[in-house]
Amino acid sequence: MPEVLPGAALAEVITDVAAGAGVAIGRGDVVVLSQKIVSKAEGRLVALDDVSVSGRARQMAERLHKDPRLVQVILDESVEVLRAERGVLITRTRQGLVCANAGVDQSNVPGDDVVCLLPEDPDKSARTVRVQLANGAAVVVADSFGRAWRLGQADVAIGCAGLTPLDDRRGTKDAEGRELTATVEAIADQAASAAALVRDKAGRESVVVVRGLERFVTEGDGPGAAAIVRPVDEDLFR
Amino acid sequence: MPEVLPGAALAEVITDVAAGAGVAIGRGDVVVLSQKIVSKAEGRLVALDDVSVSGRARQMAERLHKDPRLVQVILDESVEVLRAERGVLITRTRQGLVCANAGVDQSNVPGDDVVCLLPEDPDKSARTVRVQLANGAAVVVADSFGRAWRLGQADVAIGCAGLTPLDDRRGTKDAEGRELTATVEAIADQAASAAALVRDKAGRESVVVVRGLERFVTEGDGPGAAAIVRPVDEDLFR
Repeated sequence: MPEVLPGAALAEVITDVAAGAGVAIGRGDVVVLSQKIVSKAEGRLVALDDVSVSGRARQMAERLHKDPRLVQVILDESVEVLRAERGVLITRTRQGLVCANAGVDQSNVPGDDVVCLLPEDPDKSARTVRVQLANGAAVVVADSFGRAWRLGQADVAIGCAGLTPLDDRRGTKDAEGRELTATVEAIADQAASAAALVRDKAGRESVVVVRGLERFVTEGDGPGAAAIVRPVDEDLFR
Repeated sequence: MPEVLPGAALAEVITDVAAGAGVAIGRGDVVVLSQKIVSKAEGRLVALDDVSVSGRARQMAERLHKDPRLVQVILDESVEVLRAERGVLITRTRQGLVCANAGVDQSNVPGDDVVCLLPEDPDKSARTVRVQLANGAAVVVADSFGRAWRLGQADVAIGCAGLTPLDDRRGTKDAEGRELTATVEAIADQAASAAALVRDKAGRESVVVVRGLERFVTEGDGPGAAAIVRPVDEDLFR
């Protein structure tokens, strides 16, 4: 992908780049976009020099050995701090996502001291690109999340449109005829993870087309990735 | 796959079924096995009628509305209980994995009141199948895990051999020439998630061959999925 600037018509850029690569995106395809290009197109960039740092952010930054301006941006993007220790800041974002640094980061962002925020409403971002693509494809906005008990990051869907986010198999039968009681497949998250395997995150490989998931691609936008967020009152690990 | 019985020569069954499906497994392929068939082949089945229930298990079972025999088996497979509330039992298993019910379940297990445990050493299981396949393929043992803050399950690698479990990109440069400071890709977990997208868990689709990951397939067995387990002293969510 070329560098995406604020205001970019993302669907147009995607279609052009895909055509250049000989890929015709169509019905049943799942187009996985990196959070970063979506955020950039939406102008979700903050120059750290413009940030006014509160006392709370300053104290937290000192404790965590982070840039106080960055901590301020993270707090501004969060509704709750879950953990702030050992250099790690885990929050619940305005979007309801639990992740490190509220998803704010600096990688692949042009300019020094500019950070990139998550899209304000990643499901809406996905819906917007989907309607503009107008080709029957589903759209996923993917970001890399750490995991509480596992090292490394796996991509998850922070937004989606036209894709069944969760495939609820509860009540259906297994090969032994026994009812499945707990099987809910995180389709959108796993599609994001599959896409992550083929793209170079240090480069500008920001769009992946996943094929073979037609059975999960829907006519309507569906509930989006908001449906994957565990409600706060079911959270055992606050 | 046919029903796998204790003592089954898994590599042989896999090769036969693949050949029948016209798939020649070879160098650079990643063979993702469901935990369930690995456990079955290793005879990791427990008849609940044979379980002696302790007082602790009985009390916990009552509180969680679970079968006390099942709770006993889960406790026997665990080194630490992280959460036991609202019908949910999250433990750290003997293998170091944090998951619901210590990975013990009843789906796709023949016989009433028989439960299936995780392989004792899933990395060893992966190594064993890999050496028996003897074709240069990597092997992953995958299981479906819930997530603390997200609904639905995603498959992760509880064992692997011949595959780089974590691709550590820290210290390399992004497209802007800025050093990546946090990028460690959970390759084996994401390969497991990709595989989960194409198999029917209610059926006997227990083996998936993932292609295109040659760059992560190694000559040696490598550190296995044990390398993905976050050390207890880095765990912020106990």
